[in-house]
Amino acid sequence: MKVNGVDYRTVWMQGSTVRMIDQQRLPHEFVIVSLPTHQHTAEAIRAMVVRGAGAIGAAAGYGMAQVVLEAPAGTDYATYIARGAETLRRTRPTAQDLFYAVNRVLAAAQAAGSVDAARRAAVAEAEALADANAAAGEAIGRHGADLISDGARVLTHCNAGWLAFVDWGSALAPIYAAARQGKRVFVYADETRPRCQGAMLTAWELAGEGIDHAIIADNAAGYLMHRGEVDLVIVGSDRIAANGDVANKIGTYEKALCAAANDVPFYVAAPTSTIDPACPTGDDIPIEERSEDEVLYISGKTDAGEICRVRIAPEGARARNPAFDVTPARYVRAIITEYGVHAPNALPRPR
Amino acid sequence: MKVNGVDYRTVWMQGSTVRMIDQQRLPHEFVIVSLPTHQHTAEAIRAMVVRGAGAIGAAAGYGMAQVVLEAPAGTDYATYIARGAETLRRTRPTAQDLFYAVNRVLAAAQAAGSVDAARRAAVAEAEALADANAAAGEAIGRHGADLISDGARVLTHCNAGWLAFVDWGSALAPIYAAARQGKRVFVYADETRPRCQGAMLTAWELAGEGIDHAIIADNAAGYLMHRGEVDLVIVGSDRIAANGDVANKIGTYEKALCAAANDVPFYVAAPTSTIDPACPTGDDIPIEERSEDEVLYISGKTDAGEICRVRIAPEGARARNPAFDVTPARYVRAIITEYGVHAPNALPRPR
Repeated sequence: MKVNGVDYRTVWMQGSTVRMIDQQRLPHEFVIVSLPTHQHTAEAIRAMVVRGAGAIGAAAGYGMAQVVLEAPAGTDYATYIARGAETLRRTRPTAQDLFYAVNRVLAAAQAAGSVDAARRAAVAEAEALADANAAAGEAIGRHGADLISDGARVLTHCNAGWLAFVDWGSALAPIYAAARQGKRVFVYADETRPRCQGAMLTAWELAGEGIDHAIIADNAAGYLMHRGEVDLVIVGSDRIAANGDVANKIGTYEKALCAAANDVPFYVAAPTSTIDPACPTGDDIPIEERSEDEVLYISGKTDAGEICRVRIAPEGARARNPAFDVTPARYVRAIITEYGVHAPNALPRPR
Repeated sequence: MKVNGVDYRTVWMQGSTVRMIDQQRLPHEFVIVSLPTHQHTAEAIRAMVVRGAGAIGAAAGYGMAQVVLEAPAGTDYATYIARGAETLRRTRPTAQDLFYAVNRVLAAAQAAGSVDAARRAAVAEAEALADANAAAGEAIGRHGADLISDGARVLTHCNAGWLAFVDWGSALAPIYAAARQGKRVFVYADETRPRCQGAMLTAWELAGEGIDHAIIADNAAGYLMHRGEVDLVIVGSDRIAANGDVANKIGTYEKALCAAANDVPFYVAAPTSTIDPACPTGDDIPIEERSEDEVLYISGKTDAGEICRVRIAPEGARARNPAFDVTPARYVRAIITEYGVHAPNALPRPR
């Protein structure tokens, strides 16, 4: 999508360097970072310079390609590859796309007949994964736009826009597609504490695409649904279990309960790479608990224009910080993938 | 309750000056402000130097006593009184205790036989209201403590502790009483965006009383309930309709839905002054919408020790900021008042 008139993807590769938009500095600064080795890429994933299921997947795929490019031909080759894959897998435990991408690039390299062929295959596979992710976002947008009427008010949680993918996004893709079809769409963006990806990233994306929107405290979603001010909810997902249970950013479950209580359709949008057939139900999805500082502090821009963090809580206070929750399939009206709109109990298999 | 070993109330009167703890500077600084006229007191209520149903009520009662003390004997007397009452009533539209206190002090002054007698009666009535509020908190604590078992994990939303009242509080009073009975209690404090009264005030209060606790993002409450890590929820209220519908801080409704979905008992604690018999249902309770800056910015303390606000959202972004929501009575297990524990459809009348 365009930033100041120039087309960008969230993450891409130039030679052996991975480049990405630094999502920790948005919306206040637009900065591209360069990551020369797979260790740099892994650290960027862990520190959430890049975040969002699809973007993590693409970054991990490129990171795995870096591992293969870096691996010394000879006796240490297999060890280096295995260790690099493990470094990438350990960055974020919940995102299914991360494991999917690492495994795909690894398999492409292993199927090659020589070290040189493995390098070419790894880079090509990482590029193919990124392209597939962007194409999936566009297809999700096309299918999901049919669910959005002219004048619709859509609530979304966290950021499942193009920044969370390589391009287009999942939850926001149908909104972008509907808007390009000429439909008027209004978006309520949950700010999404603790990291405020809704206030910081979704609002930034929507402004860039000219979509009318308002940021709300996460607490206000139920109130607006109860008052009939929300026509549908669309969220993304970090992992979908085989039974249709959906792991997504913490608070998604609360919004699903609000939608159910007020007969507001609740949709999940995700490429099929997010579906984990090996995970029977949501109870089997590991939930990452992150640093309590994410709750105790918040980052923003001072009136003087400086980006800094401020402590909200008293000195010595403790916090709990689960980063994801699981929404049972019974609260999900449908799941939008690149192949269409599916009942949660009739999901396509990743191809 | 004690602050650094000294007993404080949230708000009190000294001569014709209203004094209160500046709740906008907690938890980072403990400061007492002096308000020489009813206009100062009204502005402090509006700007949320004092907040919380009972504390607003006591401050408004004292502010109304200031009006009566200031009113010039003679032809302008009645006009001054009426205008002063209106200034106070216009500060916050949702809090029932505010209207209750203004009306009580006004009635006491109007029943007096002379201007001097009216002044004495107004001050005495304001003091009686503050004392009754503190006593109600203590009684709510006594009744509510029976609902808290040894080892219980209690979730609360916003701050309905002693800072929200004159002393003791409503939602936190049963926790304080249970702890003083020797029960072990653990509290999950919703941070309560947008103003973070949970992270800033509830955590500060609980630390002062030595109650073990963790702050959570509002989004995490549903997750913890779903995992069975919450035994009961207690919240306060700003206004209770005659049918038992409960207006409270935005997000309370979401937590009530989470509790209902996971069979977690959901209690509301409030003095009977919060009950509005003139309000048939929650639909009749006016809901205040506050400045969007409360969502777009957040205040805290920098690493350098300075208190400042930072902007979370992109420049130009808009927000919606409803300050309260209504929880239908069917989601409320019981309402704890100074008279006992009541079914929502069997509330006592304010006396």
